Amino acid sequence: MSTHSAPAPDPAPGPAADALQQEPGAYPSGAAVKAADRAHVFHSWSAQGLIDPLAIAGAEGSYFWDYDGKRYLDFSSQLVNTNIGHQHPKVVAAIQEQAAKLCTIAPGFAVDVRSEAARLVAQRTPGDLDKIFFTNGGAEAVENAVRMARVHTGRPKVLAAYRSYHGATSAAINLTGDPRRWASDSASAGVVHFWAPFRYRSPFHAETEDQERDRALRHLDDTIAFEGPQTIAAIILETVPGTAGIMVPPAGYLAGVREICDRYGIVFVLDEVMAGFGRTGRWFAADHWDITPDLLTFAKGVNSGYVPLGGVAISAEIAATFDQRPYPGGLTYSGHPLACASAVATMNAMADEGIVENAAAIGERVIGPGLRAIAERHPSVGEVRGMGVFWALELVRDQETREPLVPYNASGPANQPMADFAAACKRGGLWPFVNMNRTHVVPPCTVTESEAQEGLALLDEALSVADAHTTA
Amino acid sequence: MSTHSAPAPDPAPGPAADALQQEPGAYPSGAAVKAADRAHVFHSWSAQGLIDPLAIAGAEGSYFWDYDGKRYLDFSSQLVNTNIGHQHPKVVAAIQEQAAKLCTIAPGFAVDVRSEAARLVAQRTPGDLDKIFFTNGGAEAVENAVRMARVHTGRPKVLAAYRSYHGATSAAINLTGDPRRWASDSASAGVVHFWAPFRYRSPFHAETEDQERDRALRHLDDTIAFEGPQTIAAIILETVPGTAGIMVPPAGYLAGVREICDRYGIVFVLDEVMAGFGRTGRWFAADHWDITPDLLTFAKGVNSGYVPLGGVAISAEIAATFDQRPYPGGLTYSGHPLACASAVATMNAMADEGIVENAAAIGERVIGPGLRAIAERHPSVGEVRGMGVFWALELVRDQETREPLVPYNASGPANQPMADFAAACKRGGLWPFVNMNRTHVVPPCTVTESEAQEGLALLDEALSVADAHTTA
Repeated sequence: MSTHSAPAPDPAPGPAADALQQEPGAYPSGAAVKAADRAHVFHSWSAQGLIDPLAIAGAEGSYFWDYDGKRYLDFSSQLVNTNIGHQHPKVVAAIQEQAAKLCTIAPGFAVDVRSEAARLVAQRTPGDLDKIFFTNGGAEAVENAVRMARVHTGRPKVLAAYRSYHGATSAAINLTGDPRRWASDSASAGVVHFWAPFRYRSPFHAETEDQERDRALRHLDDTIAFEGPQTIAAIILETVPGTAGIMVPPAGYLAGVREICDRYGIVFVLDEVMAGFGRTGRWFAADHWDITPDLLTFAKGVNSGYVPLGGVAISAEIAATFDQRPYPGGLTYSGHPLACASAVATMNAMADEGIVENAAAIGERVIGPGLRAIAERHPSVGEVRGMGVFWALELVRDQETREPLVPYNASGPANQPMADFAAACKRGGLWPFVNMNRTHVVPPCTVTESEAQEGLALLDEALSVADAHTTA
Repeated sequence: MSTHSAPAPDPAPGPAADALQQEPGAYPSGAAVKAADRAHVFHSWSAQGLIDPLAIAGAEGSYFWDYDGKRYLDFSSQLVNTNIGHQHPKVVAAIQEQAAKLCTIAPGFAVDVRSEAARLVAQRTPGDLDKIFFTNGGAEAVENAVRMARVHTGRPKVLAAYRSYHGATSAAINLTGDPRRWASDSASAGVVHFWAPFRYRSPFHAETEDQERDRALRHLDDTIAFEGPQTIAAIILETVPGTAGIMVPPAGYLAGVREICDRYGIVFVLDEVMAGFGRTGRWFAADHWDITPDLLTFAKGVNSGYVPLGGVAISAEIAATFDQRPYPGGLTYSGHPLACASAVATMNAMADEGIVENAAAIGERVIGPGLRAIAERHPSVGEVRGMGVFWALELVRDQETREPLVPYNASGPANQPMADFAAACKRGGLWPFVNMNRTHVVPPCTVTESEAQEGLALLDEALSVADAHTTA
């Protein structure tokens, strides 16, 4: 519609969408919300005609609910981002106060909340990662980390792992090692994929953790030798891979990668977009192994996604590269005041309320033991792995052969067993995180023991649906 | 720092930064804000050791101020995003209310504010652009528009203009036609650059507007013929190029591009990240010429950047491509509730308060005539061009030869004339938008006549500094 004096009639079909014209802004029911959604919202990663999005009326802590009053225990933390739970009062208040003060200002200025957010992130990140470049989310963080590494080294290639996710912008999706890359794949993106350790489905036919680690390091070192170390700007790894399956690396693996990077002058990037800010029971997953990368990317948990925010924590050496030479990257909302205010409140609340410690304790005392007990009862559970509030159940048709419950990248009827399992969870009031043949147990870091127990009981029940698809 | 039980000491040097340790969160002065900024904030597009960011204490309407109480009239709208001015009370209230209700929810759900924001954007965008894919900003909007075009057509290449800016993520920066591309340039990104019309520095040696239009269309058509139309997924253009110089296209040019795209089945993408939402005195710049592209990218003005937000408005035909087939892109914060709430309030306030009409009127009655009068007094002003609150002054050493006041992409001493001019503006209390040899007059769409007059007077004064560098 090209006029601006008076809005033209809404062309969306259907009575509910038309009704909105009468009273714009009035959404009395979930049906009205959904009608306008179906008319006008284009959804991520979806066939738009095949989805039926649930209309959400509200959320608090570990729960959200729909317009019928049905409550769901959020074992997904949405997309594994609400580490502090829904609607944390201190973060809500900080957003409201900052909104009243200063919503936005260009990235070239200095602002109190931007300074403080950067100071707090720098304080939490390992080692000398003391300069913070803020972005709007994880993909842009990865984009900029790769750019910094390429300019810093003057080398073209980046090594990334299969079974990984790094974001959906051009450089980030090319680094990603899952089927979402394929439609945007550029053979000339300068990315080389290698295999990272994964004990349960070992790419290296290893029989022990130590063997897995040694063979994975040998594989990486060999790959570097044949690619040419002097052509490689960076190696990027999720410290603990997230959506790809929460494969906790064997002891010594990350130290080995650090040593390889040092040997060849390769920038070591750890992607902590999903694993960071308490998810694994430490502020950063890298803290479990006392590893300091050269660049660390973050988003999600830094402010639980209450306002879009991500960033890169930068080592002193790489920051120095851009001391006299302009950094060739930027964005209008870098260090956005509202986003920074929510990050400051989030990090302070997490420290004051022991939220990271809670994630560690719930993982060790409740979720870990609970999932292992569940695994004993269900033939569909092939493996339980994780730490903190970051756990995966590998669902299989056969525990012996480890055949996945559904094939890699299955859709439609081939994916029915996982679709049935997810539906069973939702019927019971549990919102699961499901990817391929896995379900992840990723509640907020604030989850209580009784909420965790409630969720485990619902999961236990829903898994009987998965069991029906096994060979047992 | 790898512990999480107690924050490790801040390693930043200097007494001011250290002092923050005593009382985190206390920033009593601009010096304290700046000390922590210098210790921890990594800034966009900057040599970190050479910048001296002004600490901002507050902002309202067309003004912001520092900690010494010095006020600046904002003739930059920050990065040309605060179309509704600073701290608009209705938008601030909407953010506060939404924060109390629901800060974040995953993109797979339906939510009232997401539905309503999409409905309102769809209502304002031209033609059948009725499905809205939300992103966090303009770069991601462009990334996704290009992805949609490539999947929709099955073709690899995208044509983009020199003298353009489309964002800093990998695909977006490769489309960009300014020196910021160079450090991230990938010869294999599938981008071909062509020349768009620019009457003052005609790439086609044209002597009239009509000639410029005809020759620009012939140049584009020839380029397509030699690239192979069947290899070209999309042509992307800023409807009115922004940072590159606010070159209003000649009448008929965009219609001609539309016709060329239709002839070859090429997707026409209009980038309205900077020109959209009132900046040109219409809701979208495309409205001036009654053009409907296939995809329209937006950000900035949609909510004046109060919360990071961008998006793509999608034609019915392209949306249909992803009806039964999954769209291969997405992001955690797509359709972020807080961002959508601020967009709804912004669009409603703009309509209720006649803000778009104000931008048109101020441009026509005050800024246009005012700048033309200024041009007559200053030998440094080579050309005045623009519309609405979107104007450029082309500063030259010589009005006859049109030699720019500073060379293309000048820095250091070669850029001194422009640096001196910008400093003179700031001394006078005017915050200018400066790029290469141009200053842009881009105040909020809410700017009043007296504010515009005040700014023009300050600009008039500062231009004497530029005059001193001319040959006149």
